[in-house]
Amino acid sequence: MARYDFASDNTAAAAPEAMEAVLAANSGFASGYGTDHVTREAADLVRQVLDADAEVRFVASGTAANAISLAALCRPFEAVVAHDHAHVCTDETGAPGYFGQGLGLIRLPGASGRIDPAALETALAAPDVSYRQSPAALSLTNATEYGTVYAAEALERLIRPVKAKGYGVHLDGARLANAAAAGFELKRIKDLGVDILVIGGTKAGMPPTEAVVIFDRDLARRFDARLKQAGQLPSKGRFYAAPFIGMLKDGALVRHGAHANAMAKRLEALMPFPVRHPVEANGLFVEMDEPTLKRLHGLGWFVYRFLDGTVRFMCSWATTPDSVDELGHALKSVA
Amino acid sequence: MARYDFASDNTAAAAPEAMEAVLAANSGFASGYGTDHVTREAADLVRQVLDADAEVRFVASGTAANAISLAALCRPFEAVVAHDHAHVCTDETGAPGYFGQGLGLIRLPGASGRIDPAALETALAAPDVSYRQSPAALSLTNATEYGTVYAAEALERLIRPVKAKGYGVHLDGARLANAAAAGFELKRIKDLGVDILVIGGTKAGMPPTEAVVIFDRDLARRFDARLKQAGQLPSKGRFYAAPFIGMLKDGALVRHGAHANAMAKRLEALMPFPVRHPVEANGLFVEMDEPTLKRLHGLGWFVYRFLDGTVRFMCSWATTPDSVDELGHALKSVA
Amino acid sequence: MARYDFASDNTAAAAPEAMEAVLAANSGFASGYGTDHVTREAADLVRQVLDADAEVRFVASGTAANAISLAALCRPFEAVVAHDHAHVCTDETGAPGYFGQGLGLIRLPGASGRIDPAALETALAAPDVSYRQSPAALSLTNATEYGTVYAAEALERLIRPVKAKGYGVHLDGARLANAAAAGFELKRIKDLGVDILVIGGTKAGMPPTEAVVIFDRDLARRFDARLKQAGQLPSKGRFYAAPFIGMLKDGALVRHGAHANAMAKRLEALMPFPVRHPVEANGLFVEMDEPTLKRLHGLGWFVYRFLDGTVRFMCSWATTPDSVDELGHALKSVA
Amino acid sequence: MARYDFASDNTAAAAPEAMEAVLAANSGFASGYGTDHVTREAADLVRQVLDADAEVRFVASGTAANAISLAALCRPFEAVVAHDHAHVCTDETGAPGYFGQGLGLIRLPGASGRIDPAALETALAAPDVSYRQSPAALSLTNATEYGTVYAAEALERLIRPVKAKGYGVHLDGARLANAAAAGFELKRIKDLGVDILVIGGTKAGMPPTEAVVIFDRDLARRFDARLKQAGQLPSKGRFYAAPFIGMLKDGALVRHGAHANAMAKRLEALMPFPVRHPVEANGLFVEMDEPTLKRLHGLGWFVYRFLDGTVRFMCSWATTPDSVDELGHALKSVA
Repeated sequence: MARYDFASDNTAAAAPEAMEAVLAANSGFASGYGTDHVTREAADLVRQVLDADAEVRFVASGTAANAISLAALCRPFEAVVAHDHAHVCTDETGAPGYFGQGLGLIRLPGASGRIDPAALETALAAPDVSYRQSPAALSLTNATEYGTVYAAEALERLIRPVKAKGYGVHLDGARLANAAAAGFELKRIKDLGVDILVIGGTKAGMPPTEAVVIFDRDLARRFDARLKQAGQLPSKGRFYAAPFIGMLKDGALVRHGAHANAMAKRLEALMPFPVRHPVEANGLFVEMDEPTLKRLHGLGWFVYRFLDGTVRFMCSWATTPDSVDELGHALKSVA
Repeated sequence: MARYDFASDNTAAAAPEAMEAVLAANSGFASGYGTDHVTREAADLVRQVLDADAEVRFVASGTAANAISLAALCRPFEAVVAHDHAHVCTDETGAPGYFGQGLGLIRLPGASGRIDPAALETALAAPDVSYRQSPAALSLTNATEYGTVYAAEALERLIRPVKAKGYGVHLDGARLANAAAAGFELKRIKDLGVDILVIGGTKAGMPPTEAVVIFDRDLARRFDARLKQAGQLPSKGRFYAAPFIGMLKDGALVRHGAHANAMAKRLEALMPFPVRHPVEANGLFVEMDEPTLKRLHGLGWFVYRFLDGTVRFMCSWATTPDSVDELGHALKSVA
Repeated sequence: MARYDFASDNTAAAAPEAMEAVLAANSGFASGYGTDHVTREAADLVRQVLDADAEVRFVASGTAANAISLAALCRPFEAVVAHDHAHVCTDETGAPGYFGQGLGLIRLPGASGRIDPAALETALAAPDVSYRQSPAALSLTNATEYGTVYAAEALERLIRPVKAKGYGVHLDGARLANAAAAGFELKRIKDLGVDILVIGGTKAGMPPTEAVVIFDRDLARRFDARLKQAGQLPSKGRFYAAPFIGMLKDGALVRHGAHANAMAKRLEALMPFPVRHPVEANGLFVEMDEPTLKRLHGLGWFVYRFLDGTVRFMCSWATTPDSVDELGHALKSVA
Repeated sequence: MARYDFASDNTAAAAPEAMEAVLAANSGFASGYGTDHVTREAADLVRQVLDADAEVRFVASGTAANAISLAALCRPFEAVVAHDHAHVCTDETGAPGYFGQGLGLIRLPGASGRIDPAALETALAAPDVSYRQSPAALSLTNATEYGTVYAAEALERLIRPVKAKGYGVHLDGARLANAAAAGFELKRIKDLGVDILVIGGTKAGMPPTEAVVIFDRDLARRFDARLKQAGQLPSKGRFYAAPFIGMLKDGALVRHGAHANAMAKRLEALMPFPVRHPVEANGLFVEMDEPTLKRLHGLGWFVYRFLDGTVRFMCSWATTPDSVDELGHALKSVA
């Protein structure tokens, strides 16, 4: 049977801290649609971790969270600027355009998943013309799709010209835990100009849940109606809030992120194939030809070939040193 | 502190059968997006309970499940026929129109939540004109919003003229467990002409999850892409599938539904106010003036005034006979 | 052969003033997409007639103009408040929801096509809840669908509480010419709080064209992109602008409107059936049973039964006194 | 003052044949929404020219006609395959995604505006996966954006594998008149597998109008409602139908197309700059550096730099040999 340990960071089970919090929350009656005490507590914890007075909601899907955020920042005849290989561009079946009724995506290049600032400036400098969807927002991802991490300064550099234009900023934090573990300071986000942040729960080791953090209070108006209409205002909200309590109250989120990052480093040390991108978070991208990949699959290790042609190995909170070593052996045997 | 025991059937915690299945599923690595073994097992159980060879998906939201179903049956310039007080018409913030880009809702009358067959026939007989959204699908709800239950024959009577027109049929089964407990045979659904069925998990006592059952295989083509785009193809699918395993494998779903129905009957027996609709499932709708309702709220019992002006009391798997009796006392004291 | 003279005010040909302006504009080369000199001149004339410094665009379709306006004022999870029988509610195949991705319509009662102020206040007073589309804009129609005319004061009374809430206002002026001819002062619109006005060209006797007047400059940002995406930024803009030049430069618009109104009055004087609504503009609504209507159809006069059950007779710039008298005879013969 | 003669083929006035037909149609009363005798006659003529028993509608906008067609062929979670520089991809402000609620565009390379068949095959061969919008239709353009013309055989080669997959085909004929004049046989379209064709009126020398030809009768169901909702079912339909009568009844459409093509050839003969694409229709694309283009603008000749970096010169029915020669002199003087 195929092993999915390294296929993605969403193939892992949920971490005990998260599940215990779910079980603790699963008691008695609670009011619905995010008005319950569990949701309140979790939102407070998120605010505390970010040191920010922001609106917080808990939703079921990262794809939806991103798409709803972009639809809040951008009208259908406008566009979101994002990295060419950002999840919103490549892995969400066009969800931004679906939730945002055709809003455009302007896809920018940039090494190892980070947007090239010069390309961004060119995109922002293009004249507003009626026959094209002009930019209205920037979407960033940290850690990036290629396992690299933006420092706060690097984000600032990208965000500054965007805010100067009066445009919005979305930060996809599906792997924010890994970025934080790599040194990205969560408390600095509030000063970077981010309008909406999505903190990934699922890839961080929780059961399905994502936190939507709205820094720009104007955007928050009627946000619950926005979520409800989009199928993302859960009646039993505590099931999406509780995992964040479990993972935030004593630092498990970043601790697990650090573990995942360390496992990626351990794998890098064993990797007999050329590594293509800096290993700064929990992913490893290597050059491997198709017959070799087939042989690896043949040994039961399922991993994907990624958008840039590399083969991707993802680690998670649940990755064990033993499984890394096992995989290392397998890799050597097929090299 | 307010008690939400009877405010809705989604204020309850999740039932032990569901949670145990979640915990059992939360082990090891699993492939994503509904391709895992837990999802497979749960889908098989749903098919078995329905005695039907249908496609089954597990999603996070009933609102989304309904809206996606209607969007699959109806184009934007067409309309869905539904009861005036159906959940899709009144409680989903226009989600059908959002997911279906403005698809119309033709709202029909009918006593106690059941569509009046004559009104349906009139709606179907209206000539197709370009300036109006003509019907393309019927949306039914069982048990209804008013705690009544359609027998299979009653559904057949409504569905027959709809299918004769070549239109689609959606069945909102948010409270299918309660309908089943009241005698509605689940194995008959497959022969009624229903194209898409949504089986409610949340209100039936599960953590957030709903099963989408696609009887019409043509509709199932690229359904995963449809769900993914709509933010309803969870990567960690097992968390939405597992509760159905726990609740279906030994009949807990219908057993809990029967309990909730029995609690509603128990409450009816104690009710000092006129009951407006037949108590066939887990809800009770009574006539109560505003000062009385305020007094009841003052005693800590939170319940809603419903669309028809009655006050609604909902029971769930978690409703205890003691709490019913407590509420009965409170009601007497404010009567 | 059926005669459509009174079936609608869009069955008439275009008036000579409009066509001459089109022919005059149809010469030489002109830049596209509304940047041409004809469009500039027409926009200036519209501003002059309204005595307002507003943005003006010319589009092909009133349905689209209305829907685009509402989509500009209202997000998908919000609703537009309108008269139950407003054109946007009943005759546009759900276009507001299509262009606005499911934005809601809250339909209010009111005698003879005018919104009941008390009903509006009730709608505005409803609490904002997440499961319902709350109001974000008011849509008004002058002249109304029932041939009545709001005075500026009556509009003010409706608009004031809407603006107090911070909501937007749209004025559907498909028959603004008739309202103006009936005494509604066009120069007062700018002070009423209207954000977007659509001035009907088609029903006023032009070839297909409508003017969109944007009083709120914030709304005008990227409006050309909005129109282009919606298929309403014509490349050969002069064909939509020129008719307004012909009809505005010497007052033909209101003059033709006055003629149409006078013809409706003339028909009223001859009408052997009970007239249901005050005849203030160019329409007449009468009580007539089905066999009688059939007989009238049999005589070749095609007219529609309207939403309130009356039979509607519409006059236009092209209605002749003779045809009114002819119809009067026919009506007497079937009475 | 700037001259727009060669800036686009939509800067010209309407041809006399078209305008005479409009004036002829502008008489008496006519029923609305495309049910009039003028529309009938025009539709018959379109069918005759195509030798096809197809549904025909006349609409105001090519952008809308294309977008509505693509929305009819493709669901939001699917994609349309088109040339990277097709008008639907680059010049319509994302209209396909707006009308089609986020439907995707898969953009293919190909020399001089023609889709590379190998790239198409690769796109069609990509596996259907849930996280990507898979192809559901092909959009072709003839003549292409680069002034080249597909022969029927070339279209067949592209269409065959698309139909083999069961996908739809849209043909954007904004410049079909020019393609026909270049030898593309209109009567062959019906056998090529095209499901929806848009015949451009505007660029062919008419006032704003486009014909939508629906070969696949299944797609035609409720098409009027589709158009009405999208703001493209004009009440005074004769204004959009009449120009086609004038241009089709004695061959003016193709005759004018041939003239425009000949003018492009004449310009090619005078062109002192390298011509980048074969001149097969009415456009000329040349290499010209920015200072030279500025000088040309300085002489009053307004033309655009196009997507591939060339400078585009478009001819139309209204282009005179004298103006070509004038431009030729100007070009020499700036060369």
